[in-house]
Amino acid sequence: MSKTDRRNYLIGLLPGDGIGRDVVPEACKAVEAAADRFDFSVSWKKFPYGAEHYLKTGEVLPDEALEEMGKCHALLQGAIGDPRVSPGILERGILLKTRFYFDQYVNLRPTLSFPGVPSPLKGGDCVDIAVVRENTEDLYIGLGAASSDGVRMEIGMKRPSYELRGFLNLSVDPVMDMAAQIALATKLGVSRITRYACALARQRGEKEIVLATKSNAVKELYGFWEGIAQEVVSEEGLYLKLINVDALCYQLVKDPSRFGVILCPNLFGDIVSDLLAGIAGGLGLCASANIGDGLSMFEPVHGSAPEIAGTGRANPLAAILSASLMLEHLGEQQASGAVKGAVYMYLRDSSSCELPIELGGSKTTSQVGDAVRSMIEE
Amino acid sequence: MSKTDRRNYLIGLLPGDGIGRDVVPEACKAVEAAADRFDFSVSWKKFPYGAEHYLKTGEVLPDEALEEMGKCHALLQGAIGDPRVSPGILERGILLKTRFYFDQYVNLRPTLSFPGVPSPLKGGDCVDIAVVRENTEDLYIGLGAASSDGVRMEIGMKRPSYELRGFLNLSVDPVMDMAAQIALATKLGVSRITRYACALARQRGEKEIVLATKSNAVKELYGFWEGIAQEVVSEEGLYLKLINVDALCYQLVKDPSRFGVILCPNLFGDIVSDLLAGIAGGLGLCASANIGDGLSMFEPVHGSAPEIAGTGRANPLAAILSASLMLEHLGEQQASGAVKGAVYMYLRDSSSCELPIELGGSKTTSQVGDAVRSMIEE
Ligand SMILES: CC(C)[C@H](C(=O)O)[C@@H](O)C(=O)O
Ligand SMILES: CC(C)[C@H](C(=O)O)[C@@H](O)C(=O)O
Repeated sequence: MSKTDRRNYLIGLLPGDGIGRDVVPEACKAVEAAADRFDFSVSWKKFPYGAEHYLKTGEVLPDEALEEMGKCHALLQGAIGDPRVSPGILERGILLKTRFYFDQYVNLRPTLSFPGVPSPLKGGDCVDIAVVRENTEDLYIGLGAASSDGVRMEIGMKRPSYELRGFLNLSVDPVMDMAAQIALATKLGVSRITRYACALARQRGEKEIVLATKSNAVKELYGFWEGIAQEVVSEEGLYLKLINVDALCYQLVKDPSRFGVILCPNLFGDIVSDLLAGIAGGLGLCASANIGDGLSMFEPVHGSAPEIAGTGRANPLAAILSASLMLEHLGEQQASGAVKGAVYMYLRDSSSCELPIELGGSKTTSQVGDAVRSMIEE
Repeated sequence: MSKTDRRNYLIGLLPGDGIGRDVVPEACKAVEAAADRFDFSVSWKKFPYGAEHYLKTGEVLPDEALEEMGKCHALLQGAIGDPRVSPGILERGILLKTRFYFDQYVNLRPTLSFPGVPSPLKGGDCVDIAVVRENTEDLYIGLGAASSDGVRMEIGMKRPSYELRGFLNLSVDPVMDMAAQIALATKLGVSRITRYACALARQRGEKEIVLATKSNAVKELYGFWEGIAQEVVSEEGLYLKLINVDALCYQLVKDPSRFGVILCPNLFGDIVSDLLAGIAGGLGLCASANIGDGLSMFEPVHGSAPEIAGTGRANPLAAILSASLMLEHLGEQQASGAVKGAVYMYLRDSSSCELPIELGGSKTTSQVGDAVRSMIEE
C-alpha cells in the first residue's frame, strides 16, 4: 500500500466471460463512489483472460500474468466459462490456478437474506451464515488419473507453503478402465482455515463453529480434519460442533436460521455454499472472497450465463457485494460498509419494478449499478 | 426362492440400535399383512448386531453372520449408531461392510411428496425423484491414511467383482501431519449403476437421466464417470444431462419438480439424497434399497435417534416403505404396491391428530404400524 497521504489501491480486474463483463463495471462504479466519499483512490489494471482470449490465442492464464496480478492490492473477477470451451479448462486454468498460485486458502462465502429477495424456503428469510471453505486442498488438488489397466501416477504438487511428492500405483483385476483421485489435507491447511473461521466467529459474536465432514464413512481424511480443527478451536476458546455433510444439507433446508459460521473442506464448501445461495434466494446476491496472505481475489459466485450476456439482464449485486468484501479486506471498513449498506437500502426501498430484472423487476444491469452508486454517494 | 406352490421368503432382520428396534417390527407387520393378502409367506431371521452387541461382546459384524445373511432372500435393517460408540465403527463395520460384502452396487433412494407431510420449500409438494447412488466405490472404498510425515499405504481391496492392489507414497515438505484418501471409479462400477438408472428411467417413462459430478474441478475421476455413463446411456437410447453437484443442490431448492432420475457417485448420492429428504418433508418417509446381484438390503434412511428410542415417537413409515421396496425386489409387485398405497392412504385420510407424532400428530410408532396394517388388509 502506498505510504502517501491519500490511500491509493491498484486493483486487478478480470471480467472474464459472459455476464462477468457486464457486472464488473458496476462493481467498479461502486468502488469509485466509495473512494470519493471515503477519500482514497483506485486505479484499475485490466486482464483479458477468459474464453475469448483463449479461443483467439490458445493462452489460458500465463505465469507472467499471475506475476503482474501479484503487484495489485487485490483482484476483482467477473465469471469464467463459455460453452465453446470444453468444461474445466478455464475453471481450472484460471480460477483454481489463481487460488492455488496465491495460496488463497480461505474461500469466504457469506449468505445473507436481503429484503426483496424471496427465499424458496417457507422460513428462509432470516439467513445469516458464513461458509468458510478451505480453498487449496481436498479432492481439488488435481491429482488424478484414468487408465485402461490401473492407475500409475507420479505426484508433484507445489503450493507456496509446502510441496508434495510421491506416486500412486494401482492395478485392478480383472483389468479394466478405472480412475482414481487423491484427496489431501495437511495440518497447515486445516489449521489456518480453522483459525480464520475462529476469528470470524469472534467478530460475529458467536461461540460455535460448525464443521461439515463425512468421517463416519471417509475416516482417515475427515477424521484428521476433525482432530486438527478441534485442537485449534479449543486453543481459541470456542466450541466446535461436528456434523456430517449429508445431515448438514438436511438441516439447512429444514431450518437455516440455526447456523452461523460453517467451516468446510473444499468440496463440501463448494456444495454447501451453492445450496445456501439457493436457500437465500439465488446467486444474484452471492459474493465471495478468496483470501490468502498475498494477493486476494473477490468474485461473485454466479457463473458467466452466456445466454443473457450483454442483454442487461444480469444482476450486478453479487459483484458489487464482492467489491464490498474487497474493500473490507483492504482495510476500508467504512467504504465496505457503505457499499453493502447501499445494496441493502436499494433492495429495501425499491418498489418491485425498481428491482433488477433477475429479481422480477425491470432494472437493467447498469441501472442497478447506477442506483447503488447514488446510494453510496449520499 | 423355494419352488413350492406357496412362495416363502426368509427375511433377515437387523433392527440395530435406537429407534431401529422400534420401527422394524412395524415394517414386519406390514409385510405379514401383505403376505396374508397376496398369498405368500415370510419367515424372519433376526441378527443381533449393533451397539448393544458390540459393547457387550466387542464384536461388530463377523463374517459368519454375513454368510448366514447370504442365505436369506433379503435383509431388512433398522438403524445403526449409538453415542457410546465412537462414530464410524458401527457405520463402517455393519452398514458399509454389508453393502460391500454383497456388492450392493445400487443405493436406490426414492423421494416422494406424501399428503400430510409438508415440505419446507414453498413449491416443494410435488417431488417425485429417484436418486440412484453408486454404492461400492468413490471416496467410500476406505483407502486412506494419516501420518506425521507423509502417507505411505499398501492398498488391497477386495470386492466380489474385482480386486484392487497397489500403494500410495506421499511425502510433504516441510514435514508435517497430513492425511490422504483415494477415490475410485471402475468401468464396471460406473456401467452397472448407469444401466440400473436407465432401466429405472424407462420404468418411470422418462427419457432423461441427470448425472451429478464435479468434473470442472475434479477432472480425472468425474470426467471418467461422465465418459462411461454417456456411453451406457447412449447405448440404452436415453439422454444424459450432466450437472455439477453444487449447481444441482442449488437447482433442487429452487425447483425440485423438474427432476426425475438423478444418478450420483457414492458421496454425492449421500448428500443429494439427504437434501431431498429434507425437501420432501423429512427423514420419516425416506426409504432406501441397497441392491446387488446377491443379497439385497432395505433400510430407512434415518438414523437411530437414541434420544427418542422406546418412547413411541419414532415414525415407522420409512421402515414400512423400505419393506415395500423389498417386496418389489422379491417380485411381489402387488404386495409392494399395497404397502406403499396403504402408507399413502393412511397419510391422505388421516386428520392431523391421527398422524405420527413425528409429523405433528398423536399416534405412536405401533399405532401407526397398526393403522397401515389394517389398510393393507382391506
Ligand atoms: C452412516 C453412513 C456411513 C451412511 C453413508 O454415508 O452411506 C449414511 O449416511 C447413509 O446415507 O446410508
Ligand atoms: C468453477 C468451479 C471450479 C468452482 C469450484 O468448484 O470451486 C466454482 O464452483 C466455485 O464454487 O467457485
